[in-house]
Amino acid sequence: MDFDLPTGIAVLERTPRTLGALLAGLPPAWTDATEGPDTWSPYVVIGHLIHGERTDWMPRARIILAQGPDRRFTPYDRLAQFRESQGRPLEHLLDEFAGLRASNLATLTGWQLTDAQLALTGEHPAFGSVTLRQLLATWVAHDLAHLVQVARVMATQYRDAVGPWRAYLSVMG
Amino acid sequence: MDFDLPTGIAVLERTPRTLGALLAGLPPAWTDATEGPDTWSPYVVIGHLIHGERTDWMPRARIILAQGPDRRFTPYDRLAQFRESQGRPLEHLLDEFAGLRASNLATLTGWQLTDAQLALTGEHPAFGSVTLRQLLATWVAHDLAHLVQVARVMATQYRDAVGPWRAYLSVMG
Repeated sequence: MDFDLPTGIAVLERTPRTLGALLAGLPPAWTDATEGPDTWSPYVVIGHLIHGERTDWMPRARIILAQGPDRRFTPYDRLAQFRESQGRPLEHLLDEFAGLRASNLATLTGWQLTDAQLALTGEHPAFGSVTLRQLLATWVAHDLAHLVQVARVMATQYRDAVGPWRAYLSVMG
Repeated sequence: MDFDLPTGIAVLERTPRTLGALLAGLPPAWTDATEGPDTWSPYVVIGHLIHGERTDWMPRARIILAQGPDRRFTPYDRLAQFRESQGRPLEHLLDEFAGLRASNLATLTGWQLTDAQLALTGEHPAFGSVTLRQLLATWVAHDLAHLVQVARVMATQYRDAVGPWRAYLSVMG
């Protein structure tokens, strides 16, 4: 499937409500659960998504669109949420994510990007030249990958509780 | 994590809204997407969940609670949705799933199950004796496993569109 803006935005605009419907008000036994040491809970994932809204996707899109002399992106700080969300209620984080996402999508839509702009490039710190189109497709896929992660982390909490049904639930690993 | 009824129901009651937030109104490019021949689209998954509400989880719970002479479950028909949902709009299916789930949870809560009842057993057609507690834990894990599947099917549609970022998105396989 090729990336186009309306189809990609259709997913981006649904992610906050999807994660809110899944996680808001859920007992901490679910929202603080992980898959083991150094793996992320649903709570940590929401902090990570907030950080991405603030410092990653739109700032990178702006670097590409500006086409200045230095088009190199700042690396994504994958641990920022451990400093920034600490102690804040999950519901506040979900609201903040929803607000940042809505604002970012209003800006993105307002740009009325052309195919020529979507083909402009920036410099990824690890793998070099990438297009704006690839960046925006990755924003969508990144949302979905973290939704996969959140649901998988939760499912695996019942690895033992399901008894022999574990054989049918490949998600349990 | 052990299964207990309120914590398990907290997930079961959120699944229809979560899938509704993710899928309602989304372009068919997403909702009809699959991972290849003989794999399921998000649309097909919703039909499967409806069939489970009607014929699987609660009928099996009733077989266990009745403790009659034949406690063997009817096998889950994994293809029922291809007959039953065909041609129906996804939004109707999401509404039907939400209605059936709400009604099933009202019944389940009304039973006020004791630990002794949760330890009663039925006979799974493939792997023999299972407890009501295991059945209910599997209902929860089954919801989450299909949420994993829906998000993964969608993410993999952008396998090529993300370009070099594919290396960071393990969900793409």
